[in-house]
Amino acid sequence: MKKNCIVAQSGGPTAAINASLAGVIKEALSCGEFDTVYGAQNGITGILNESYINLTALIKENPNNLFLLKQSPAMYLGSCRFKLPDYSEDEAIYRQIFDAFETMNVSAFFYIGGNDSMDTVLKLSEYGEKTGSSIRILGIPKTVDNDLMATDHTPGFGSAAKYIAASMLEIAHDTYIYNIKSVTIVEIMGRDAGWLTASSALARNSYSRAPHLIYLPEAPFSKEAFLSDVKALLEKQNDVVVAVSEGIRDKDNNYISASDEKTDNFGHVQLNGAGKTLEYLVAEKLGVKVRSIELNLLQRCAEHIASQTDLDESFASGEKAVQLALKGVTASMVIMERNTPYAITYKAAPIKGIANEAKSVPREWINKEGNDVTEEMISYLLPLIQGEAKIPYENGLPVYLPVPHLIH
Amino acid sequence: MKKNCIVAQSGGPTAAINASLAGVIKEALSCGEFDTVYGAQNGITGILNESYINLTALIKENPNNLFLLKQSPAMYLGSCRFKLPDYSEDEAIYRQIFDAFETMNVSAFFYIGGNDSMDTVLKLSEYGEKTGSSIRILGIPKTVDNDLMATDHTPGFGSAAKYIAASMLEIAHDTYIYNIKSVTIVEIMGRDAGWLTASSALARNSYSRAPHLIYLPEAPFSKEAFLSDVKALLEKQNDVVVAVSEGIRDKDNNYISASDEKTDNFGHVQLNGAGKTLEYLVAEKLGVKVRSIELNLLQRCAEHIASQTDLDESFASGEKAVQLALKGVTASMVIMERNTPYAITYKAAPIKGIANEAKSVPREWINKEGNDVTEEMISYLLPLIQGEAKIPYENGLPVYLPVPHLIH
Repeated sequence: MKKNCIVAQSGGPTAAINASLAGVIKEALSCGEFDTVYGAQNGITGILNESYINLTALIKENPNNLFLLKQSPAMYLGSCRFKLPDYSEDEAIYRQIFDAFETMNVSAFFYIGGNDSMDTVLKLSEYGEKTGSSIRILGIPKTVDNDLMATDHTPGFGSAAKYIAASMLEIAHDTYIYNIKSVTIVEIMGRDAGWLTASSALARNSYSRAPHLIYLPEAPFSKEAFLSDVKALLEKQNDVVVAVSEGIRDKDNNYISASDEKTDNFGHVQLNGAGKTLEYLVAEKLGVKVRSIELNLLQRCAEHIASQTDLDESFASGEKAVQLALKGVTASMVIMERNTPYAITYKAAPIKGIANEAKSVPREWINKEGNDVTEEMISYLLPLIQGEAKIPYENGLPVYLPVPHLIH
Repeated sequence: MKKNCIVAQSGGPTAAINASLAGVIKEALSCGEFDTVYGAQNGITGILNESYINLTALIKENPNNLFLLKQSPAMYLGSCRFKLPDYSEDEAIYRQIFDAFETMNVSAFFYIGGNDSMDTVLKLSEYGEKTGSSIRILGIPKTVDNDLMATDHTPGFGSAAKYIAASMLEIAHDTYIYNIKSVTIVEIMGRDAGWLTASSALARNSYSRAPHLIYLPEAPFSKEAFLSDVKALLEKQNDVVVAVSEGIRDKDNNYISASDEKTDNFGHVQLNGAGKTLEYLVAEKLGVKVRSIELNLLQRCAEHIASQTDLDESFASGEKAVQLALKGVTASMVIMERNTPYAITYKAAPIKGIANEAKSVPREWINKEGNDVTEEMISYLLPLIQGEAKIPYENGLPVYLPVPHLIH
């Protein structure tokens, strides 16, 4: 009797995490080694709650669902923010999970996620090794933050980078229309890693140099230097566009966003984002027209402008995980190695050394002044946003695969 | 000797205002009645400053520029926020403008803009009539707000509506992933008119009913009713998505906004913070996970997801203005009349009665409870977002026509 496999998704959404799911399903179906591919809903908690979707049936009932799944935003299987306790503290939960694997006749478990999800992969792998389980446990990376170790970049990052760069270009066009001095501050995701904010630099072209200033969490932020940077630019040009990471910190490692507190109408302390904080600073100190824009959730879910390169690589990462499982690889995460000219080789890396670690932007990819990125950064980023996803439209809007728990 | 014409743009950007400019240029070149089409930079101030671009040359040097212009965001000629004084107060400025028309050998002036720009068209028309000028003065509507009188809808609105609906759908997918109660509030532009916020309803499909609540400025907003609406939904479902206009007001006409009010040059109250205000209200009173998202500038400049219907209609409005001028029509604005099945007839309407008036959402297109729109609204909106602009991409990003004042 053929074995089954289980796949789940965890952490925050990206435009490409369903592409990895589609890659797992496609390869698990076509390899002929599995009977049924089950999706656990809401990450690892779906196994604890015995909440599964039959993904083999989903694709067999309509093969076009695989195509739609590959380019649907957010997470088809739902997510969780659940940290497995150490097995020294609570072995029962591990027994429950591995009992479920046995009951479901499962030989492989695939977990698509970021840092926290790789912690789950690590812990399950260690428990499996300790108890002599033959179940292969594999992580498939995803995160818009691009902060996972060992891999050249992470699935999901390229689409977010493409959205950010395109939006930055469009915002720049918008700022150039008035014949007055103006400052526009765009706040971009990335609490600890500046990769997403750096990708705004891709918006630059032969006529527009926006963003004119870029501040990442990896270089200490000084309000004085920032004001001086903006002021110097305003002497040469009308419009200054600034890209700033939500996670910028001063030299003492204090978040810039937390430092300027005000109270709202309800008497609550309102923690302004980094963008709003800098907006108020410019208004107060420079007295020019200023606004801030927070790209917010759209940078991780704007499927309609996903990078085809990202979707294809995410899909291939899912396929690779299945191939690795069939070769007996376990306790590993799929990684991407970059070749020159740009091409990706998919490999496995031990999950230990990846889980709970974060990859920052190297300081040498930020300029000396800490207000821009270098050419090395641009060269690194550019291949990742190539190609436009061919999203089908109906009635003027993108068509995505329906969210399972909303179908009645 | 053939006459010339001048075209200018004013007010805030849209994704389609350059399409109207392209329509003017195309028709002015192909009709054979004009020698040169000049673009005045930064609206009417470009005439006062004698700042012109030769648009005939722009297209002749590369015919593809017309195609790129039609689908470039923001305003190729730049904008202004300049209110013409009454001629009883300052006739000199009118003499300066009409002298410039004479010097430039101009027989027609086209002004693409919204409410405030139509005020300029009205005043110039009245001065022209008073002084017996033969120059035809025509307004071409544009505004994402869709609040101009006499026309079925405004160029620029459909593209913003498409961006808002697509983003709402993607945000909805993002909210559905966790198995917990959550409220997501999306703040949408529209100071006095709820058309843009209403367009978020187009995101609804067979599986997703987000936005579950919609609040427009045209119905008085009650914090108590809002909390009760959200609470009732949270008893039935996990995720509640709310679309709210930046301009919602209570029954005493006070803005629901967390921040101090500022006024712009036209005396309009500048708003921000309706979304944030409601976010804090939900956090305090309902204690569930809540976040707010401001769509901000992107809803008016996201060319990459422009409505092809909107671009085509905006282009045709520009062409029509030229045709009207050739027929001797003046002191008028191009309007769109809707036919059934959906098709547009372009006509002229007297500028008096349009300038300084605003078209609100009819109360009967909002439901009785004031927390949703009706089917009539959906039917009205749906044709406007049809078709996807074919934006060329290079190196992973949209290609737009370079901003003239940035080219060196």
